Amino acid sequence: MRRALELAALGPAVGDHARVGAVILSPTGDVLAEGWHKGAGTPHAEVDAMAKVPTEQLRGATAVVTLEPCNHVGRTGPCALALIEAGIGRVVYAVDDPGEQARGGADRLRAAGVDVVSGVLADEAEAFLERWLLSVRTGRPWVTVKWASSLDGRAAAADGTSKWITGAAARQHVHEQRAAHDAILVGTGTVLADDPSLTARGDAGELLADQPLPAVLGDRPVPDDAAVRRHPRGLLALPGHDLDAALRTLRGHGVHSVLVEGGPTVASALIAAGLVDEVLVYLAPVLLGGPRVAIGDVGVGSIGGRHQLDVTSTTTLGPDLLVRARPHRTRTGTDRSAHRATPTGAAADQAQNDRSTP
Amino acid sequence: MRRALELAALGPAVGDHARVGAVILSPTGDVLAEGWHKGAGTPHAEVDAMAKVPTEQLRGATAVVTLEPCNHVGRTGPCALALIEAGIGRVVYAVDDPGEQARGGADRLRAAGVDVVSGVLADEAEAFLERWLLSVRTGRPWVTVKWASSLDGRAAAADGTSKWITGAAARQHVHEQRAAHDAILVGTGTVLADDPSLTARGDAGELLADQPLPAVLGDRPVPDDAAVRRHPRGLLALPGHDLDAALRTLRGHGVHSVLVEGGPTVASALIAAGLVDEVLVYLAPVLLGGPRVAIGDVGVGSIGGRHQLDVTSTTTLGPDLLVRARPHRTRTGTDRSAHRATPTGAAADQAQNDRSTP
Repeated sequence: MRRALELAALGPAVGDHARVGAVILSPTGDVLAEGWHKGAGTPHAEVDAMAKVPTEQLRGATAVVTLEPCNHVGRTGPCALALIEAGIGRVVYAVDDPGEQARGGADRLRAAGVDVVSGVLADEAEAFLERWLLSVRTGRPWVTVKWASSLDGRAAAADGTSKWITGAAARQHVHEQRAAHDAILVGTGTVLADDPSLTARGDAGELLADQPLPAVLGDRPVPDDAAVRRHPRGLLALPGHDLDAALRTLRGHGVHSVLVEGGPTVASALIAAGLVDEVLVYLAPVLLGGPRVAIGDVGVGSIGGRHQLDVTSTTTLGPDLLVRARPHRTRTGTDRSAHRATPTGAAADQAQNDRSTP
Repeated sequence: MRRALELAALGPAVGDHARVGAVILSPTGDVLAEGWHKGAGTPHAEVDAMAKVPTEQLRGATAVVTLEPCNHVGRTGPCALALIEAGIGRVVYAVDDPGEQARGGADRLRAAGVDVVSGVLADEAEAFLERWLLSVRTGRPWVTVKWASSLDGRAAAADGTSKWITGAAARQHVHEQRAAHDAILVGTGTVLADDPSLTARGDAGELLADQPLPAVLGDRPVPDDAAVRRHPRGLLALPGHDLDAALRTLRGHGVHSVLVEGGPTVASALIAAGLVDEVLVYLAPVLLGGPRVAIGDVGVGSIGGRHQLDVTSTTTLGPDLLVRARPHRTRTGTDRSAHRATPTGAAADQAQNDRSTP
C-alpha cells in the first residue's frame, strides 16, 4: 500500500480527479504491475495497472489500491466490474470512496466473491486525499485562506500602501500555492484596488504549468482592462455574496481546492462562516499599526467563541514567517464538524474574564 | 577571553551592575585565578580574581577582562589603579567602558606603562552586555515590549474577554522574562482593567528569586486594593505620559532593562517613539477579528514609514508561537540609530503602491 501511495503521488496534483495508485500482486506476492491515475478522462489506477499484466496472470491476483474501486460509469467504466471480470481474487484498499455515485465498489466486489480488505494505511491515504475527500463529502472545495500581514496583523499602512510587506521568498511561495490549487478566489474589492493577475508565476515571472481558475466574488463589475481578464484560464464571475453558493458553483466547475487571496472582507466572511480548512499567514517582521487589519470581523463576540486553530508548521521565508494552521480538531481526529468552527455557548463566555496580563 | 565571558555569566543577570568576568594569567600563560562580579557593592571581576593570587605572582601577570577596567571610585575603588598597584604587566579586554565616570581606565593603564589590548571577542562581549551597554550609552533602560495576540493581531475578543488567548507554556515564559528584567512597565489602564500582580512566578505560582520593580505609567490613581500594591518590590508610580522622562526615571532607580507589558497604548507609544529594543510577540493559534488590536497607532502613515524588524528567533510554546524580533539593523551593524526607528521620507512613500496581491 505504501508503494501504491507513492504511485498515486505521480498523478497531477490539481484537477477534477482523485490521485490514486495501484499495485497488482501475484498469488505469491510478486509485483506484476503498477499503475496510477493520470487525470480526468484517463484510466483509473487499478485499470491502468491491470492493462500492463497478461490477462491470464490477473486471475486470482491481488489488487492493492489507495481508494475503494469505483462502482459507476463515468468517463471510465466501473473499476469494480473490471476487477471482477478480470478474475482478481483479492482487493486491498485504504479509503472508502465517499462519492454518491462511485461508492459501493467494495460491496459489489464482495457480492462477486472477491476477498476485500479495507482501511490499510487509511490515515495516510486520508491525509494524502484530504482535499478531494472533503470536496466529495461536503460538496464544496477545500478552502485555503491566505493573507500577508505585519507582525501586528495589518495588511497595509494607514494610507493603504503595502508594497511589499512580505519579501520575494514569501511572494514566490504564494505563486506555488496558486499552482497547487484548482482555483483562486478574490473579492471584487481586491480586483478594483490591486488589479491582480491571479496567475501562478515562477521566479522570472514566467507562467507555471498549472494555472488556477480565477474566480471573483461580488457584484461590482470587473473592468474590461483588468489584468485578471487576461488570465489563461479565463475568469469565473461569482455574483452576490452567498459564500456557500459560490463554493458550490466552484465545485460544479470541477474545483476541489480553492486558494482565497482576499481581501479582508472575503477572508473574514469565510472564517466567520467556518468554511476554512487551512490558513496560510505570511507574517512580515514589520509593525504598522493603524486601521487596515488583515482580518476584520470573524463573528467572535467573546473569547469563548474564538476560532481555535492548530499550527501545523512554521517556516522561515527570507525575512518572513509562514504560519500554516487548520481548524482545531478534537483528539479523536474523527470530528469532521471541526471543518465548520462552532462557537461555544454563552455560559462558557461568562466564565471568561478580562485578564490578559497575569 | 572566552573563559572570562563564561565567568561573567555567573554573575546576577539583573541589577544595577555590568556582568564582568576576569582571568589572571602568569607570564607563561598559566591560569592563576578567575573572578567575576557578583553584583552592586561587591568587588569588580578583576579585583575578585586578583584577591585569589599571592601578591608576588601578580607582578608581570596578565589580566583578561571582558570590560575595560574602570577608572572611578564608586562603591568599589578604581580597578585600573588596583591593577597598576599590583604590578600587572598586561591587560586584555573586550569592550570599552561607555560610562562617563568609569571610562578612561585603559588610558590610565597605558600611562602607567601597562601593555593594553582591547577589542578581543568584542562582538560576543557586546552582545552579552547589550542591555547594560545600551542603558549606559543612552541613559534609558533596554526596552523589551511584550504582547500576546491572536494570529490576526487581536489582544481580546470584541467584548474585551481574553482569558486565556495563550497557553500555560507561553504564560510561564512571560514570568521568566519578568525575572530576567529589572523592571516591568504597564499603563494605568492595564492596572485598572486587569489588576495584574506583576510578580515573576513559577509553575506552581511561587515567587521566583528575582522580582522586577513594577512601574505604572499614567495619571489615573492605582486603587488601594490593586494587586500590584502587594508586590514585594513595592510600586513605582510614573505620572504623566512622557515616555523619555519615565524611562530616565527608571534608569535613575538602577533599572537597566524594562519589560513593557502593555496595554496597547503604552506599547504602541513606545514603538511609535522608536524606544523599543526588542519585541516578544506571543502568537496564539486563534482568530478573533474585531476592534481590540494588540498594537494600535504606531505612527506609520505610509508603508515607507514602517517599523522594520529582524526576527531573531521563533519558538513553539505549547500550542503558541513566540516571535522575538529587534529593530532592523543596517548591515554594518554599527548604526546605533536603529534603536530609534527612523521613518523614510515622503519620496520613498510615493514610490509605493497598493498591490498586496501580486
